Amino acid sequence: MKVSATSAAQVVAQPPSNTTSAVPTIVDVDLGDRSYPIYIGSGLLDQPHLLQKHVHGKRVLVLTNTTVAPTYLDKVVSALTHGNPNVSVESVILPDGEKYKNMDTLMKVFDKAIESRLDRRCTFVALGGGVIGDMCGFAAAAFLRGVNFIQIPTTVMAQVDSSVGGKTGINHRLGKNLIGAFYQPECVLIDTDTLNTLPERELASGLAEVIKYGLIRDAEFFEWQEKNMPALMARDPNALAYAIKRSCENKAEVVSLDEKESGLRATLNLGHTFGHAIETGFGYGQWLHGEAVAAGMVMAVDMSYRLGWIDDSIVKRTLDILQAAKLPITPPETMTVEMFKSVMAVDKKVADGLLRLILLKGPLGNCVFTGDYDRKALDETLHAFCK
Amino acid sequence: MKVSATSAAQVVAQPPSNTTSAVPTIVDVDLGDRSYPIYIGSGLLDQPHLLQKHVHGKRVLVLTNTTVAPTYLDKVVSALTHGNPNVSVESVILPDGEKYKNMDTLMKVFDKAIESRLDRRCTFVALGGGVIGDMCGFAAAAFLRGVNFIQIPTTVMAQVDSSVGGKTGINHRLGKNLIGAFYQPECVLIDTDTLNTLPERELASGLAEVIKYGLIRDAEFFEWQEKNMPALMARDPNALAYAIKRSCENKAEVVSLDEKESGLRATLNLGHTFGHAIETGFGYGQWLHGEAVAAGMVMAVDMSYRLGWIDDSIVKRTLDILQAAKLPITPPETMTVEMFKSVMAVDKKVADGLLRLILLKGPLGNCVFTGDYDRKALDETLHAFCK
Repeated sequence: MKVSATSAAQVVAQPPSNTTSAVPTIVDVDLGDRSYPIYIGSGLLDQPHLLQKHVHGKRVLVLTNTTVAPTYLDKVVSALTHGNPNVSVESVILPDGEKYKNMDTLMKVFDKAIESRLDRRCTFVALGGGVIGDMCGFAAAAFLRGVNFIQIPTTVMAQVDSSVGGKTGINHRLGKNLIGAFYQPECVLIDTDTLNTLPERELASGLAEVIKYGLIRDAEFFEWQEKNMPALMARDPNALAYAIKRSCENKAEVVSLDEKESGLRATLNLGHTFGHAIETGFGYGQWLHGEAVAAGMVMAVDMSYRLGWIDDSIVKRTLDILQAAKLPITPPETMTVEMFKSVMAVDKKVADGLLRLILLKGPLGNCVFTGDYDRKALDETLHAFCK
Repeated sequence: MKVSATSAAQVVAQPPSNTTSAVPTIVDVDLGDRSYPIYIGSGLLDQPHLLQKHVHGKRVLVLTNTTVAPTYLDKVVSALTHGNPNVSVESVILPDGEKYKNMDTLMKVFDKAIESRLDRRCTFVALGGGVIGDMCGFAAAAFLRGVNFIQIPTTVMAQVDSSVGGKTGINHRLGKNLIGAFYQPECVLIDTDTLNTLPERELASGLAEVIKYGLIRDAEFFEWQEKNMPALMARDPNALAYAIKRSCENKAEVVSLDEKESGLRATLNLGHTFGHAIETGFGYGQWLHGEAVAAGMVMAVDMSYRLGWIDDSIVKRTLDILQAAKLPITPPETMTVEMFKSVMAVDKKVADGLLRLILLKGPLGNCVFTGDYDRKALDETLHAFCK
C-alpha cells in the first residue's frame, strides 16, 4: 500500500509502525435500521476491509479539500481499491474553509457526480474536517434523493462531533447550517494518525467540543480533562484516543435517544447559539468553529450563573480549562449586542418566536434546554461581553 | 370567506354551490409514523379546518406561481387564517414552468424563509402543480433540516401523481429530478374545483399518469378509462373525482409498500425514462411532463412488444387511449437516438452502469422493472421513433 508523505506539521511520534493489524475501538450509533459503527484507532486507513465492507456499489466519489488531499487522498483511494479492482473512485477537491460551505460549492459536487454518471448505488466519502463532512453528507442526502456515504474525519472537531449523528448541511449568508438534512452515514472511520498533521489551532478548536461533553453531561470526563489537558495539547496518542472515544460515546448516546433534535439533542449545542452569532457576524472562517463555541460556552455559563442556576466554581473551572486548551474566552472585540441579537433571531432553536438556549443548571455535568429564562440575564450577558 | 374570481378558462359548471359541508373522500398513505391523509373533493378549500388541523406552529409559507396565485392564493390564505388569528402567512410567487425548477429558484425560497425568520415549527404549503410541489417539498425537507409541509395540488398531474408519495426535488441541467429528497407531507388536499380553471393541455398531461396506473397494475381501471375518456376530457366532476381517487389509491398502495423505491415503486415510472429524455433533450418546458410520458409509454410498450412480452392488442389499446386523451404518441421530431441515450445514461434507475426499465409483460395491468432485456429491442425502439 502506498503511504503518503508525512507532513512537516507533524509534532509527535507515530505510534509503533506495525499498525495495520491494530484492532479498532468500535462505538455503535444505535438508530434502528440506520445504525452504524464508528471505528476509532491508529492506522485504520491501512486496513482496507474496514472501508470496503461499507461500499456496496462499484463507484465512489471522495470529497475532500486542498489541505487534506495532498496528504490523505491517495491513501484513501488505496484503501478503497486495494484488492478490489471493480471499484472506481472519483474525487472532488474543494477549497478549504467554512466560507466555501455554501450552495455554490455544493453544486460543483452535484456537477461532478452527474457528469461522472454516478448512480444510486454509488458511495460518497467525506475526507476532511467538519465542513467537508457536512457538505458531503448533504450532497449524499440530496443526490438522486439519497446515496450511501462514509465519513473519514481528519480533525478533532469532526472526529468528536460533526461526523457523528447525521447532521449535514450548508450555510446561508444569513446563518450557519440553515439548509441541510438529517442523514446518517454507513460508517465513521476515525484514523487518529490523521491528527499528527493537524495545525495547533484546529486541535484546540476540536477540544472545545470535548470540553462541552463534560459540561453538559459527563462531569467525570470533565475532571479527566482537567487533569489531562496538557497531554491532549501535546497530542499524546492514548489521551487523544480516549477523549475521542468518550466524546463519541456521549454523542452516540444522545443521538440514539433523539435523532431529529426534539429536545435532548439540542443540549449538544451548548455555546453554539452565541458561537454561531460570532461565526456569522464576524465572517465565516475568521474564527474556527470551536473557537467561537469556546467563547459562546463562556457566555452561556456566565448567563447560567447570572440566573443563579450554577455556582461560581463552575464558571471558574470552565474558564480555566478553556484557557488550558488555548481557546478564547471572550468574543471578538468587534461583536456588538445587536450583531448577536440579529443572528440569534434566526437560530434553528427559535420556536414560534421564542429563542431557546442550552444553559447549565445544578452541579457540574447538568444542563437544560429552555426558553423559560429571564430575558434580563441574556441582555446582561450580551452587554458584559460586548463593548 | 373570500372567494376568488372565477377564471375565464372555466369550461364546465361548478358542482352545487353548497359545497362547504361536503365530506371529503380520504385516501390514507400508510407509512408508519409518517402516514398522512389525502383529502379529495369539491369545495375543500372552503373548509378551513381541513388545512388548519395540519398546521402545528404559527407561521406558514405558501409557495405558488404567477399562474395559480391570482386565482387561488387569497383563498388558501383565508383557509389557513379563518378563525385562526394566531397564524401568519407569507408567500413566495415563483415564475411558472418546469424550466424554473432549479437551484436558483430554490435559493429564493430559502432567502424568503430565512429573511422572514421562519423557525422549525413553521409549515410550507405547496399551492400549484408538480413543479411547485416538488420544489416546495424539497425546500421543506432542507430548510433547517426539515419543516412540515402540506400539498395543495391544482393540476391533474399533481393530484394523481406528484403530490403523493414524498418524492421531491429539482432538475439539474443534465437531467430531471437529480437533486432532492424523499420527504412526506402532513396531508394532501385535493380540491377538485381547481381543475375548472386548468388549461386543456394540462388536463391531458395529467391523464397520462392516470392511464399509466391502468397499464402497470390496474386493468379494471384501464377499462373504465377506455369507456370514460370522453367524460374525463369534458371534465365531468364525478368522472374526474373517481379517476383521482383511484389513481391516489394505486399510488398510495405502491408507496406504502416501497417508499424509497427499492423496486416496486420504480414501476410508477413507466414511460418516464424515455419521457425524461424528451423533456431534458427537447428543453424543459417545451413539452409538459405528461406529454413526454405519453410518448415515453408508447416507446416502452413498443419495446415490450418487440421483446415478445405483450400481445399487439395492448399496443393498440395504449395508442387508442392516449389519442382519445389528445396526447402525443411519438417523441418530438428533433429527438435523436443519441439524445435519448445520453440522457438515459444518467437516469436514477441506472445501477452499476445497467439501465433498468419498466416494461409491460403479460396480460394488461402487469409490468416488470428490469435490466434483464435484449439491448437490441431498446435500440430498435429508439430507431423506430427517431429519424
